[in-house]
Amino acid sequence: MQVGSKYYESLWFDMNRPGEVKVIDQQRLPWEFQVVVLESVEDVYIAIREMTVRGAPVIGVLAAFGMYLNAYNHADDPQLRDRLDHAAEYLISSRPTAVNLAYAVRKQQKVYRILSDSSAIPAALLKKALEMAEMEKEACRRIGEFGFSLIRELAEKKQGKVVNILTHCNAGWLATIDYGTALAPVYEAHKRGIPVHVWVDETRPRNQGARLTTWELDQAGVPYTLIADNTGGHLMQHGLVDIVLVGSDRTTRTGDTANKIGTYLKALAAHDNHIPFYVSLPVSTIDTELQDGVRDIDIEQRNAREVFEIEGMSGPKVKKINIVPPETPVTNYAFDVTPARLITGLITEKGICKASEKEIITLLNRT
Amino acid sequence: MQVGSKYYESLWFDMNRPGEVKVIDQQRLPWEFQVVVLESVEDVYIAIREMTVRGAPVIGVLAAFGMYLNAYNHADDPQLRDRLDHAAEYLISSRPTAVNLAYAVRKQQKVYRILSDSSAIPAALLKKALEMAEMEKEACRRIGEFGFSLIRELAEKKQGKVVNILTHCNAGWLATIDYGTALAPVYEAHKRGIPVHVWVDETRPRNQGARLTTWELDQAGVPYTLIADNTGGHLMQHGLVDIVLVGSDRTTRTGDTANKIGTYLKALAAHDNHIPFYVSLPVSTIDTELQDGVRDIDIEQRNAREVFEIEGMSGPKVKKINIVPPETPVTNYAFDVTPARLITGLITEKGICKASEKEIITLLNRT
Repeated sequence: MQVGSKYYESLWFDMNRPGEVKVIDQQRLPWEFQVVVLESVEDVYIAIREMTVRGAPVIGVLAAFGMYLNAYNHADDPQLRDRLDHAAEYLISSRPTAVNLAYAVRKQQKVYRILSDSSAIPAALLKKALEMAEMEKEACRRIGEFGFSLIRELAEKKQGKVVNILTHCNAGWLATIDYGTALAPVYEAHKRGIPVHVWVDETRPRNQGARLTTWELDQAGVPYTLIADNTGGHLMQHGLVDIVLVGSDRTTRTGDTANKIGTYLKALAAHDNHIPFYVSLPVSTIDTELQDGVRDIDIEQRNAREVFEIEGMSGPKVKKINIVPPETPVTNYAFDVTPARLITGLITEKGICKASEKEIITLLNRT
Repeated sequence: MQVGSKYYESLWFDMNRPGEVKVIDQQRLPWEFQVVVLESVEDVYIAIREMTVRGAPVIGVLAAFGMYLNAYNHADDPQLRDRLDHAAEYLISSRPTAVNLAYAVRKQQKVYRILSDSSAIPAALLKKALEMAEMEKEACRRIGEFGFSLIRELAEKKQGKVVNILTHCNAGWLATIDYGTALAPVYEAHKRGIPVHVWVDETRPRNQGARLTTWELDQAGVPYTLIADNTGGHLMQHGLVDIVLVGSDRTTRTGDTANKIGTYLKALAAHDNHIPFYVSLPVSTIDTELQDGVRDIDIEQRNAREVFEIEGMSGPKVKKINIVPPETPVTNYAFDVTPARLITGLITEKGICKASEKEIITLLNRT
């Protein structure tokens, strides 16, 4: 995506600097656009854990690069495979909910397990990580095209009036390598001249909507309005939302979807007001082993500090303040699960399907 | 309610200082406990508009005192009635959604319209304002008793395990004169030794939950946990909420209820998880002229600044920061409407009833 005069992806690798992966620091946006260099599996772990990089699709790819960096830095270790097995568990432990992370790491494990020549491991892991990045990007490009058809339909129904999309958290290009998941269809529609407007949920406690989605949309020139997370239901009651598009951190084979905390509330409101509610995701986010999302998906609890401390600008300086006394008891779940019955459909790189086991399995078997 | 070693109400009048009404500054909490002296109808208007004092029941009473202060300060005005008519419209315009405000002001208008002797107006308006304060207080005390029966029932069902109550915004004693509406039953249960715990919604954008409800509960020694507004649905899915209790800014004759933005989303989640959802309110909050809340209740839109600017502590200082660039487009609705079909019942000073026209009208006709 274009940032000012330059095209960026959220993560990139330069063959001339084989010991580095570069990422955009999502903790500094929108105040500063800063690139961070990651040089070790520890760097990658911290970047994911502290959410310098967040978003299910991109943290999967980044973890794959983390495996590569570990192999690159310790190519001479006679116990390289053991070391990598250890790194794999370490990376997976950084965040429990997004399935893409474990999925990407397990893929890397398969790569080195079938290689007889240890010295070939670093190059093989790099090749696989680059391949995953390309696949993820291509998946998002296609999600944009499939999802676009839904927005075009709405635009036709509205006879040229602006199509209002509500989104929660950030499922834009920052959360993927490029294009985004939930935002990919929006960017595609905007590019093709369909008038769109996005209601951006603030997304407490970390404000990924307020900080990242607004910034992304601003860069792309897509009209948007920031709202408190509490506002979406009212907008839907009053006909001000035509479609809800969100991402996913893990979707079960039955269509239940874990996504940023609060997604479930928006799905309920969409359902109550007969507004289409779509989940956009690469198929790598589907966990075919799980049936019942509410029961089975591990929901991460994060630090209370994310709730009581908030960052912003005070004059020219970035400052953190406590919005309640820090001794206030706080609970901070990072995700919730939206049951499939509230989801109109899934938008994937293989096409759009209903959030039902039958349609999901058929879709996954499509070549 | 007890604040440290002293008993306070949220608003009070001292016969020895007849030109003043005193209120707790709800904009300074929880950082500072500060009392503000209001001396004119303009002071009252600003205190309501800027939310130094907020909460449907208490702003009604405060507006009644505003009418009195205006009469007291201009007792010699030969056009006193005209002046008061003007003050009435001025006060009503301060906030459009809470019906109690208009209701209290109209009551004061009746007082001076039937008085033949102009010089008797100030004393008559004071008497009425004091009466309203007493009535409001007594109403909340009774709401506490009626609502308590619901919590006791849940406690019995849970065989002594903690009863978990979720509340949104602040409908505690700060929002009334004393006791509160939604929180009155909680205080009553706590006083009577029933183990309760309150999930406190932060309540963006003004954070009345984070700032006022936590502070109130803390003073009273009631266990609580602060959560982001996004969290309630997840808690309900996992059996962590036994009952939802909220206040009301205006309830129609059919039971539709305007309350702080986001209430509707919690009602949807409670409904989806078969959790009782009760609205606590004095009957002065029922607007018998309205049928359809979503269609007919005027929803206040407030300044964008409330969304992009936030206040908190930075070391020992209270500081405001911008959580997004101030030029970010923002929409800020202050309330939403929860349809009666999602409300289990209303808790009033006249008893508990279903949120239906038939039961509400029967209840209102009870003496």
